[in-house]
Amino acid sequence: MAELFDLAAIGNAIVDVIAPADDAFLLDEGLDKGSMMLVDEVRGRDLYSRMKPGVETSGGSAANTVAGLASLGGRAAFLGKVANDQLGEVFAHDMRAGGAHFSTPPLIGGPATARCLVNVTPEGERTMSTFLGASTEFTADDIDPAIIEAANIVYLEGYLFDAAPARRAFAKAAGLARAAGRRIALTLSDGFVVDRHRDGLLGFIETQVDLLFANESEILALFETDSLENALTALKSKVPMAAVTLGANGSVILKGDETVVVSAAKIDKILDTTGAGDQYAAGFMFGLSRDRSLMDCGRLGSLAAGEVISHYGPRPQTSLRDLATREGL
Amino acid sequence: MAELFDLAAIGNAIVDVIAPADDAFLLDEGLDKGSMMLVDEVRGRDLYSRMKPGVETSGGSAANTVAGLASLGGRAAFLGKVANDQLGEVFAHDMRAGGAHFSTPPLIGGPATARCLVNVTPEGERTMSTFLGASTEFTADDIDPAIIEAANIVYLEGYLFDAAPARRAFAKAAGLARAAGRRIALTLSDGFVVDRHRDGLLGFIETQVDLLFANESEILALFETDSLENALTALKSKVPMAAVTLGANGSVILKGDETVVVSAAKIDKILDTTGAGDQYAAGFMFGLSRDRSLMDCGRLGSLAAGEVISHYGPRPQTSLRDLATREGL
Repeated sequence: MAELFDLAAIGNAIVDVIAPADDAFLLDEGLDKGSMMLVDEVRGRDLYSRMKPGVETSGGSAANTVAGLASLGGRAAFLGKVANDQLGEVFAHDMRAGGAHFSTPPLIGGPATARCLVNVTPEGERTMSTFLGASTEFTADDIDPAIIEAANIVYLEGYLFDAAPARRAFAKAAGLARAAGRRIALTLSDGFVVDRHRDGLLGFIETQVDLLFANESEILALFETDSLENALTALKSKVPMAAVTLGANGSVILKGDETVVVSAAKIDKILDTTGAGDQYAAGFMFGLSRDRSLMDCGRLGSLAAGEVISHYGPRPQTSLRDLATREGL
Repeated sequence: MAELFDLAAIGNAIVDVIAPADDAFLLDEGLDKGSMMLVDEVRGRDLYSRMKPGVETSGGSAANTVAGLASLGGRAAFLGKVANDQLGEVFAHDMRAGGAHFSTPPLIGGPATARCLVNVTPEGERTMSTFLGASTEFTADDIDPAIIEAANIVYLEGYLFDAAPARRAFAKAAGLARAAGRRIALTLSDGFVVDRHRDGLLGFIETQVDLLFANESEILALFETDSLENALTALKSKVPMAAVTLGANGSVILKGDETVVVSAAKIDKILDTTGAGDQYAAGFMFGLSRDRSLMDCGRLGSLAAGEVISHYGPRPQTSLRDLATREGL
């Protein structure tokens, strides 16, 4: 089949509720700064009732990446489950209005659209509490083979490992991608996700993954080490290509014997780091799908991540394509 | 009864959907730049389907003013109608989480929570298309006399003149406020609202209003003139006190023979003017309820308006109280 998409991504379809918070609030609520915790609906409502006034934006890790890739001028499809409610409509609108393909039918008569309560502390760090709602009802039946087979890269979100039906959908997508000769990329998503599913993730990475995205804490968690050097060495033997983001220190790209070090974008004031890793992946995979050099892939990642941390919300608010053109990328 | 609130405000309870747009889009959609048009649900959905990805925030003119006054450290109550749906919950959360009192029961089994589609063009001007939904079901029964009678200022939104039951609620609130010796403030809201209800508004202003807020186009519409000078002269004879905002030129305050001219706040980059007038009113009435000078009331208004036009969204994202303290106000 012809290649219609640079990227097809599968992930949780989530609406973010973003509000400022201070460290005392995180402590009172038992929230671990910088992490993602799963909450049930009751705990979600309870926490929300004590959060500050917020802003609602479409989110979800892989969905943010799809939005970023579309903003760069790429062709992307998203697969994920919303409910047929107001926030589900908002999510679907934002996906399509940004130029992405989104055709997963909404869930009828089940839980509400997933919501992620994002508490942003003054230094810009985000701490997330997610009610997965309808997004856990994404099953293998929602995998449209025509989309997977038509994508240059199939991208999977580690968060999906938390739901068994999604893990099966994952496996189906990987099988279809492999059979169609497509590349499979995975993001580890979160250190706690890695702790919960280390063996499953390692097995999947070794057997299926062509390109792995992770940040420092995730990669340390994966190999149960405190040494970044050891973790990077271990990673090289597990996966053909990896990009490890290091916050303000940029990123490291590993491919066989090659190691490419990329700087972070210079940002005057970091407002909200939500979505930084998602946008890095968007820039990187946009470059990769267009056969750019590893350095350019990394720089596109830094550029996209830099845009998103300079404002509240996990998706670009300016055209990344225009930004990349201005930067000579 | 003791004075519990600096302000009690009645208005439409609306969630804003804010997205960037260009002039060609406004033209194609027949939208009049800078105005507020009412749309039905079908037209609202249709327009939304062609808008860019957006951000959702609680809005509504008088509700924004309440949020601003609370951010300044004032005590404010809001009366307005949401539906018992997701966006209604968001609205109620944001009102209360910002420190305002909000106890109007949500509408059950009627239209959805009101939504305002805000298209923001590159210069920061906002063009609004509002589906009033549940907010038009606000009736005189929703006026809680205990709240009106306990407020230093009772503030009414001109937009409410578009719905007959709200006009009756308006009259009830004004009667209660008058009987309790409270001050009544009104904002004209929009030039088209003034055109639709000129006689009703003029009658209400002459007989009931102690303090009128308007911008230049609204005041020109009210007196059907092209001369600001003529409009201001006419205004002096109709109402004891008025504050007329003039965008980048600041504002003019009229009280009897007194005329006070106030500068606008200096802003590096105007991103989105949504809520500028609402926040001006918040600052002004916070000052007034604390017996500050007219100049200080105007400066508090400029300060609050300046904060809100420097980011997307119609409500303060930083503490206006801290901002005012830093500015020596």
